[in-house]
Amino acid sequence: MNKAEKTNPSQPRKARDVQHWDMETDIAIVGFGGAGGCAAIEAADAGSSVTIFELASASGGSTAMSSAEIYMGGSGGTRVQKACGFDDSTEDMVTYMTMAAGPQADEAKIRNYCESSTAHFQWLVDIGVPFKDSFHEERAIMCLTDDGLLYTGSEKAYPFAQQAKPCPRGHNLYIEGDNGGPLFMKIVTENVEKREAISVEYETRALCLIEDDDGSVVGIVIRKNQQELNVRARQGVILCAGGFVMNEEMIAKYAPLLSRGNSPIGNPGDTGTGILMGMSVGGAAINMHEGFISLPYYPPASMTCGILVNDKGQRFINEDVYHGRMGAYLLAQQSERFYYVLTIDQYSDYEKVSFMGAQVAGTGETVEELEAELELRKGSLQHTIELYNEDCEAGEDTLQHKAAQWLEKLEPPLVALDVTPGRGAFIPYFTLGGLDTLPSGEVVDPQRRSIPGLYAAGRTACGVVRRAEGYSSGMSVGDATFSGRMAGRAAAAAQRNSQ
Amino acid sequence: MNKAEKTNPSQPRKARDVQHWDMETDIAIVGFGGAGGCAAIEAADAGSSVTIFELASASGGSTAMSSAEIYMGGSGGTRVQKACGFDDSTEDMVTYMTMAAGPQADEAKIRNYCESSTAHFQWLVDIGVPFKDSFHEERAIMCLTDDGLLYTGSEKAYPFAQQAKPCPRGHNLYIEGDNGGPLFMKIVTENVEKREAISVEYETRALCLIEDDDGSVVGIVIRKNQQELNVRARQGVILCAGGFVMNEEMIAKYAPLLSRGNSPIGNPGDTGTGILMGMSVGGAAINMHEGFISLPYYPPASMTCGILVNDKGQRFINEDVYHGRMGAYLLAQQSERFYYVLTIDQYSDYEKVSFMGAQVAGTGETVEELEAELELRKGSLQHTIELYNEDCEAGEDTLQHKAAQWLEKLEPPLVALDVTPGRGAFIPYFTLGGLDTLPSGEVVDPQRRSIPGLYAAGRTACGVVRRAEGYSSGMSVGDATFSGRMAGRAAAAAQRNSQ
Repeated sequence: MNKAEKTNPSQPRKARDVQHWDMETDIAIVGFGGAGGCAAIEAADAGSSVTIFELASASGGSTAMSSAEIYMGGSGGTRVQKACGFDDSTEDMVTYMTMAAGPQADEAKIRNYCESSTAHFQWLVDIGVPFKDSFHEERAIMCLTDDGLLYTGSEKAYPFAQQAKPCPRGHNLYIEGDNGGPLFMKIVTENVEKREAISVEYETRALCLIEDDDGSVVGIVIRKNQQELNVRARQGVILCAGGFVMNEEMIAKYAPLLSRGNSPIGNPGDTGTGILMGMSVGGAAINMHEGFISLPYYPPASMTCGILVNDKGQRFINEDVYHGRMGAYLLAQQSERFYYVLTIDQYSDYEKVSFMGAQVAGTGETVEELEAELELRKGSLQHTIELYNEDCEAGEDTLQHKAAQWLEKLEPPLVALDVTPGRGAFIPYFTLGGLDTLPSGEVVDPQRRSIPGLYAAGRTACGVVRRAEGYSSGMSVGDATFSGRMAGRAAAAAQRNSQ
Repeated sequence: MNKAEKTNPSQPRKARDVQHWDMETDIAIVGFGGAGGCAAIEAADAGSSVTIFELASASGGSTAMSSAEIYMGGSGGTRVQKACGFDDSTEDMVTYMTMAAGPQADEAKIRNYCESSTAHFQWLVDIGVPFKDSFHEERAIMCLTDDGLLYTGSEKAYPFAQQAKPCPRGHNLYIEGDNGGPLFMKIVTENVEKREAISVEYETRALCLIEDDDGSVVGIVIRKNQQELNVRARQGVILCAGGFVMNEEMIAKYAPLLSRGNSPIGNPGDTGTGILMGMSVGGAAINMHEGFISLPYYPPASMTCGILVNDKGQRFINEDVYHGRMGAYLLAQQSERFYYVLTIDQYSDYEKVSFMGAQVAGTGETVEELEAELELRKGSLQHTIELYNEDCEAGEDTLQHKAAQWLEKLEPPLVALDVTPGRGAFIPYFTLGGLDTLPSGEVVDPQRRSIPGLYAAGRTACGVVRRAEGYSSGMSVGDATFSGRMAGRAAAAAQRNSQ
């Protein structure tokens, strides 16, 4: 047994051991991505002084690397939804997001998110985020035009559409190409810079929290220019330091299934530091096993008309779901191979526009020929396609419930792509677990009691998004920016603690 | 924000706040089930004084409620394995258990378990646990005869049998009926009672750990006869307080998928106290989302010859796997109904011997008739059974790889049981997450550094068993007893701390 003292960067320092406060601020924020930036703006506008500590030499975080789609709606619709003719209801949005999170759903958090969503849209507009009042019709994994609105989840797909009226909620910034993230963070950064109450310390590492003997968080220890400095945070600390997708050890320990993916999505700082800091003062980490892991099978949108089969030649999911849902169900199958089968027409410009990178596994002038080439059980794929084609003719996918608009008979010649994880296809992943928080952003312990002075937002917290099965694009930046604001607001409302 | 002091039973007390030690012992053990009992015996035999604190008025824990099958083998075989003609290899056992734990596997822990397994068998024999040198041939969910050995997992099933030579490792106590658990705990309790170095305090609740300023655990606070007492544990505290299956709030937070089961398996004390205590001093809790959740579809063993289909009429698992694996794959399907289809002969004495309690959903003089009665897509079940019957004739299940011995053509008349979760079938569940420990039982923090003075064993720790998908009967009591011994041994080897 090792009796050595635990001297771990993420173990808290005791306030009574602090000889001298090197810096003081009302609110210390760790991390300057979407969550940290929005937390700072909200807190400063509520009258608090704020210091953001960012490891990198510039703002950005994972938000800047993303498309920055933002999932918003409800309350009759945002300005963009209304302009595009969509009347969105809060209840439909709550239902959809609750189904998306499944048994892991945090009802209070989802409800708060949905009820405040059109106001959040307005807040973003007010700080200068531009959205065009136009609807992007085509099914896309991200919007490469400057259109302001698109479907970014499984809203129109079974079983969601049967429970909640579909409505597009992915809001895309008014800029061509996949450039939403950098633009979004540029706007947030400008907003931060023009507020005198906010200072930003770049190239600064947060080492650990500082806690009182009663367990309240009263500051953080940082390292800057080789020096360790004690920072008093009179109203609290907000952890916005991202997730842990870049921490291989934590992935292996907490979310080992994600290791079946091959491309971690996040910024190099997503090493779980914020989560570990929160845990070090008793914060509960929840949903740590869960992540987004995806088979990005579209574009082209025509892929939606193809079918996904396992090594039994069986379909097992409606192929009009969001790509993360397809990834989740694929990984849950007992099968050594997976193939995506489609016609030459559906294949269309696959090679040009696909992100997926899956290779052709076989082709067939007949279904029988393809079945043999893929070494599937004789009769298996033939049966699947026979029933599928009958259903296409009748206009109803009786087995997997793919929406009628995507039902096109699979007429040979056919192509099959090998989409087996580990055989070349791009399988991106990121974490969806983090510190348990109240809708206010207060970090709670395993008994759900708040830890005074500690808040978390963005990927460091476990937000509204909980499963690959129900993920929709825009939920991450939506949650990061909204939860950042909630935490900033709650911290700014806290009493100033001057010891 | 709530600035009230955190006064939580599981928050640690500081040693410097202890005015008086009411009791002293070398090793304090929380919980007197299989893990706690074996930890105490091992520690006492190594020269330490031990006090066990048990909430209930008698020993037992979940071990006494179980069948107390014990999963052991390797190193050429235990005495029973050898006597029954089985030559078990450690490498096969390691391979099987590693596949069973999947991506969550703890390699060091599994290897230690397997390499020490025949010695563990001998240790059990030495304390008086009786095993008969006889093999139980029939496939059973538990052994109702007094036979000493049976297959209790998926060893003979795909994909395990293809990677590791099958060997039965479920050791059953020498007693008729499902009475292994009470007998096992009677023997352990007698062993505890006859050791003068061990005291047992029943009807005593462990309230919280006591820690030094350096983070070492030096005792526990207990409540007995309405009094709170400070107990100094000079060599450490071993948490053997069970899992959290009886804590609905923790299930909802950490393992919400388990709520799809309907029968929590465990004793009333399985409320997560031990895990929470460990977390309160910085211990990492891992694999918290995971649990055993099962469809106990056999006995009768003839059920293995039937097929499980979803609402698409598709098979999706080989029906010769352990029932927990079937439960796990069933829950991972997108399907609103599940049916177990079998012949009248296979149905046999189902009503008499089944634990499952699933009701008949339909019968058919032909497959077509059954398909219609179950409202399955026309042609779907017919196709499945057509291929299955062809495979049965050829003696190879080409699609799901059920072993040849179970392949019997499904000749009408047929019966279908409704095994949909939530529609009457018995779906037992328990947790498989807990404190992260080294093979020695030392509790580690999220960076895997040991917390001095703190150990955990049994269900309070996250042991060798990690997933429903790979669970085998006997792994729980096997792990509880073995990990208890490891923790007892490590604590007894620790330096005595007298402050």
